Parts: sequence; structure tokens; C-alpha cells
Amino acid sequence: MHIDIITCLPRLIESPFNDSILKRAQTKGIVEVNIIDLRPYATDKHKSVDDYAYGGGAGMVMMIEPIDRCLTELKAKRSYDDIIYMSPDGQLLTQSLANELSLKKNLVLLCGHYKGVDERVREHLVTREISIGDYVLSGGELAAAVVADAVVRLIPGVLSDETSALSDSFQDDMLAPPVYTRPAEYNGWKVPDVLLSGHEAKIEQWKHDHALERTRQRRPDLLKKHQ
Amino acid sequence: MHIDIITCLPRLIESPFNDSILKRAQTKGIVEVNIIDLRPYATDKHKSVDDYAYGGGAGMVMMIEPIDRCLTELKAKRSYDDIIYMSPDGQLLTQSLANELSLKKNLVLLCGHYKGVDERVREHLVTREISIGDYVLSGGELAAAVVADAVVRLIPGVLSDETSALSDSFQDDMLAPPVYTRPAEYNGWKVPDVLLSGHEAKIEQWKHDHALERTRQRRPDLLKKHQ
Repeated sequence: MHIDIITCLPRLIESPFNDSILKRAQTKGIVEVNIIDLRPYATDKHKSVDDYAYGGGAGMVMMIEPIDRCLTELKAKRSYDDIIYMSPDGQLLTQSLANELSLKKNLVLLCGHYKGVDERVREHLVTREISIGDYVLSGGELAAAVVADAVVRLIPGVLSDETSALSDSFQDDMLAPPVYTRPAEYNGWKVPDVLLSGHEAKIEQWKHDHALERTRQRRPDLLKKHQ
Repeated sequence: MHIDIITCLPRLIESPFNDSILKRAQTKGIVEVNIIDLRPYATDKHKSVDDYAYGGGAGMVMMIEPIDRCLTELKAKRSYDDIIYMSPDGQLLTQSLANELSLKKNLVLLCGHYKGVDERVREHLVTREISIGDYVLSGGELAAAVVADAVVRLIPGVLSDETSALSDSFQDDMLAPPVYTRPAEYNGWKVPDVLLSGHEAKIEQWKHDHALERTRQRRPDLLKKHQ
């Protein structure tokens, strides 16, 4: 998979790609992530990528021309499955959307900053808009890093043990059960006996029961999907 | 506001705090963000912070002891409003939760990694659990950065123009209207005439109508809250 992330603040998202699984996926050659600085695509001498909003109001708006020039250059090199604009009013990221995106070959993630991009970018240049949740961030950079992380970890070979992703919360519309590790007792707080029993069938039953119980308590909406 | 972020992979989230508004908020002295490496709180010679899960299964689990030692040290220095564990099955982050958190004084954001933390950490050591959305990430680090960004930008004085945050999507349960900037025509695509008219009342009406229209089309659920 090839992911191009377009941003006017590239330094903001360098570190998530330089450690952990996103780094490892790149080292293994499974994923290529390019962080592209929008500024060189500016057309004026000040290298401006934003300007005041027409009609007034607080906050700057990212201009269409640098974005169009950058996308034109990228599209000359490869064909993209999706050019995604990160926006709080886009389609909500879910585990199932992450699964869908993990099957794509080439993606662009366009990060807005300030008040977002000129509406004409959204109308004419992007193919999809994604939101990571109902809250506003200072830019799309962290949102793009979240999408990249959620998607890349699902690609076979990225996680060292592939069943680790399959047993995550949401993959079967259930939350994950509680997990415990050593020591068996800490501060008087004990690990449930069954998990120490070595009795595989009982352990699986316990995990299933507690995943269901947790989902019922915290996210009954996930269970309703199946009714 | 003081935010301590506890992680076993501190390099993963350095950059979001070294640029843009999170950097500026710190430079201005409005916010202090410490990224705390969990590893020095490990008790064995390998500085382990994770171990195999009791009962088997893929993925490592973060141990309670290093986390408890780290929190004990922090709590000796200041009193925390909340010790928040980042988890996909926590309370969903919304703009209203971000507003609420922006009024706090001292927060801990505890990042799980691998399969998450030992359940006893969740039962006994944290006061709250927050999720940024219904998807799984390789760790809580990006989620903590998202929470910090969503919260810090709401603190008065952080954004250069405070009305910029108030006119964001979700603050009044409405999406933001489309925005445009120069040039007025690009590639034959024009900015709506009214925004160039200079007629303030008409512009405000246009913005309101289009915010409402966008909310109706994309997120009718937000409007239902008021019915």
C-alpha cells in the first residue's frame, strides 16, 4: 500500500511514522508512507497556502491552487483508489471502514488546517471525506495519522501475530474481554482464578462471557446490529 | 492546564507537541504537556513494561506495577482531576466532552499499547476511560494526542482568534458552512456571489442556511437533539 499525506505542517506528523508498527510496516516494505509538504506547491513568493475567507469570519482557509498542483503531480505518477479529505463532517471512521481501506492500493490523505480547505477542493478534487470523530482538531494531521494507523495495522504481515488484530474490539462487533498479566496478585488485587487454571475451554468461555458482558454494559448498540 | 501523557513509546508522540497550536500553547505558558516514558518505572533489569496475557492469546499486556509506580510519583507532586486511560471501549470523545475537559487543571492520559493494560489498572488506578472512536489503533498514543489537541485549543488564549473555535463544527450541534478563499474563480469553478457581495446580513444568512443544509444532509442526528 502506498499512502501520500498532504499537509502544510509536515513536522506535526513525522513521529507517528517513525516508530512502532507504522515504522515497521515501512521497513518491511509492506507500506510506503510519504508526508508531502504543501508549501512548495504555492504559487506566490511568500509560499502562501492559505488566505482569508471570502465573506469574513475568523480563521484562514487553505487555497485550492497549491492543492490542485500537488494532486496533479501525484496523479501523474500513480492512480489513486481514493483522495481523502480529513474533515469533522466527513464519513465517520469505523473499524469496518478501516477494513475496507486496508484493501486499497494507493491513497491520498489531504489534511486541512486552520478553517479547512476551499470548498471547491471538496467539490472537485477529492473523492471521499473521512472524520475520525465528532470533535474538532486544529488540523487534519492527527486524523490522517489515526487513519493510517488503523488501516495499516490490518494489512497482513504488519502485526507480528495476525490474530492479534482479529481479536481486537469491534472486529466482531464485540468489545475485547479484560486482559491480565503477571503478577497474579498485586496490592491484594487478584487475577481471576480461571485464567490461571490452564483449562483452555473454560478460559475461552470466560473470555467470551466477559467480552459479551462488557459489550452489554458499555456498548449495547453494537449488539443490536445482530438482532 | 497541566497534562501528563504516560507511554511506553514516547517518541511516537513527540512531534504533535512540537509544532502548531500545542507548541504555541506551551510557549505561551497556557499549557504544560509532559510526555512520560514508562520504561524507567519498570522493576526488572530488562525494563519490561509488558508481559504475556494470562490465559493465553495473541498480543502483550502492559503490567500494573510500572504504571502504579509512575502514577504514585505523579500524584505526590500534584492533585489530578482525572487519570484517563485511552481505550476503544471508553467513553466516546465528543466536542462536549472536550469542552468539559478544557476546564480541568491537571490531567493524566495513560496510553495502552499492544493488547492494552492489565485490567486491574482500569479497575483501581484510573478514574475515566476515553475512546476517540469505534476503531482500534496500535496504541493509545495517537488517541492521547487527539484528546490533547481537541481540548487545548478550546482553552482561552490558545487560538489567536477565539471566535475561531466557537464557529467550529459541533459547537452548536451544527456543521460548519462551506468556506472559500481567493481566487474568486479557479478552473471555471466560482465562489458564490453572495460571499463577494460585502453585504454582511446576506452573508450571515447564507452561512447559516448552508450550515443547516450541510447538517441536514450529512448529520441529521445532530439536529434531532434539539427536537
